[in-house]
Amino acid sequence: MPSYNLAIVGMGNVARALLRLLISKETDLRRRYDIRWRLTGIATRRLGWVADPDGLNPLAVLHGHPVTPHGAAAASPPRNVREWLERARADVLFEATSLNVETGQPATDHLKAALECGAHAITANKGPIVHAYHELCALAKEAKKQFLFESTVMDGVPVFSLFPFGLPATDIRGFTGVLNSTTNVVLTEIEKGRSLDEAVKRAQAMGIAETDPTADLDGWDSAVKIVALAIVLMGVDVKLENVQRTGIRELSEEKVRSVRSSGTGVDLRVSPELLLTTDPLANLEGSSSALRFDLDVFGLSFVEHNPGVEATGYGLLADFLRAVQP
Amino acid sequence: MPSYNLAIVGMGNVARALLRLLISKETDLRRRYDIRWRLTGIATRRLGWVADPDGLNPLAVLHGHPVTPHGAAAASPPRNVREWLERARADVLFEATSLNVETGQPATDHLKAALECGAHAITANKGPIVHAYHELCALAKEAKKQFLFESTVMDGVPVFSLFPFGLPATDIRGFTGVLNSTTNVVLTEIEKGRSLDEAVKRAQAMGIAETDPTADLDGWDSAVKIVALAIVLMGVDVKLENVQRTGIRELSEEKVRSVRSSGTGVDLRVSPELLLTTDPLANLEGSSSALRFDLDVFGLSFVEHNPGVEATGYGLLADFLRAVQP
Repeated sequence: MPSYNLAIVGMGNVARALLRLLISKETDLRRRYDIRWRLTGIATRRLGWVADPDGLNPLAVLHGHPVTPHGAAAASPPRNVREWLERARADVLFEATSLNVETGQPATDHLKAALECGAHAITANKGPIVHAYHELCALAKEAKKQFLFESTVMDGVPVFSLFPFGLPATDIRGFTGVLNSTTNVVLTEIEKGRSLDEAVKRAQAMGIAETDPTADLDGWDSAVKIVALAIVLMGVDVKLENVQRTGIRELSEEKVRSVRSSGTGVDLRVSPELLLTTDPLANLEGSSSALRFDLDVFGLSFVEHNPGVEATGYGLLADFLRAVQP
Repeated sequence: MPSYNLAIVGMGNVARALLRLLISKETDLRRRYDIRWRLTGIATRRLGWVADPDGLNPLAVLHGHPVTPHGAAAASPPRNVREWLERARADVLFEATSLNVETGQPATDHLKAALECGAHAITANKGPIVHAYHELCALAKEAKKQFLFESTVMDGVPVFSLFPFGLPATDIRGFTGVLNSTTNVVLTEIEKGRSLDEAVKRAQAMGIAETDPTADLDGWDSAVKIVALAIVLMGVDVKLENVQRTGIRELSEEKVRSVRSSGTGVDLRVSPELLLTTDPLANLEGSSSALRFDLDVFGLSFVEHNPGVEATGYGLLADFLRAVQP
């Protein structure tokens, strides 16, 4: 029965949700997939690079207790991501640091290091797709490892995994969606009579909004997501600055729309939009998100109903299973 | 470049939609998937078993022109499905005959014959899943061929193909949906002021309702679909008679609901239900259908927007690609 060494960089809500799921589904993974795992590396700004090939205690990590490597591993801590991955003998890297919209760093470097060290590279961070998708795919191919990123758009909903296996020989003509959970939660709370600040605090308490909600409220998060979708699923070479982005702090609705223009290329737009009440996008409650693909053969929507942070953690777990049982 | 011999039994709307797609996507299949195909067998009640390993003219089939096998193939026509499959040297059988709710025949026998003759067995017919799912899976495993049936529920929407690859290590706790296109079209037409009869005729003219719409209007079609979903995705051994089915001829809404009961087993129900206008299921127009899965990690819905019969044909085409490039 194969056992995999897992390393996680970034220990925020998403990484913690992943760890909880790994623990709660441990028996299930063994029985259904014949898979065992061991946590051999964690890295955070506070703790630095912590690695132990004999395994760290995941419950201690979750409860914020000190995690100390044993024996030789304790002697001199790794000084960078490569030393850390090697010391952890990592088979899989989970990249869960927070998004840097402008550079996609340091997430991209973490993923490159993983692939170069012979580990699968799995990310919940959208930055690397927007800034280094082709480079990371090429590295993964060369290393015969997987570069996976399902949780970057709609958490664990298999948006990327669906293509091409689920929908072979289709053409995507465009897509439309509500992709930012924080905004949706904030708007729902405002509808209930709360102020913007109170609403943001509630979204943070739910583990959905980040400490700095700017990326969400100003549409950056959605813009990064639609660029990722366009690059990966439509095969077009777009940049973040190609997105027409309208801030939505004062507004009551967010809609992400992408329509392939009649000429070459793709138009990408993030903006608040008024919807008919019969529009499925108008009835999304709380943290729900939705994405509609206009394919040549039919139109297909996905709706994720009021997910918690567990759903994003699940996306990482699912990528792990896809990587090791492709 | 591999070329596959295709045989189609049943030449109604769905099979014709498949043929049109095969023709329109011929170049695409060659370029993107390195796949060629040839139509070597068709069978209908009117024409009988027609096979020619050198290929029949698909355009003649579509236009209802006579299709005559050449040379030796013309001498004595095949007398049954096995002779036909062998004469056609079929690599893939598409089963597109109409549904027999009680027995699942003769579709089940066609699929068995295909697998026993070494062809992939692809069906748009739900009967065989309800009546012979395990037997057909076992035959496919033995023959190292694929038994696929994506188009039986929600046309080409990858409901079955999504599991387990797209959603590994999840538990399905239940599902709810609007699964019958004919009913939805009929209700939409009635809302516009038409009578039931007129509405049914329109649905037939659109190629969505069958000549005898009883199976749709009395909920049999939906009942067969939820049994298929329960058998395949939840792994439970249910029969059609376990479904609580309420006819809907007089009613304004159809809802299919399946909820796993707290004890063992599964409760399956087809019935008309009043919905809140904010319910995504209440806003499905025309031939649209929807399916919501309640998973342990989140809730996920699919909506197929106003598909035509092309969407069902696409489900068969997609299964063909999945079978030959697994």
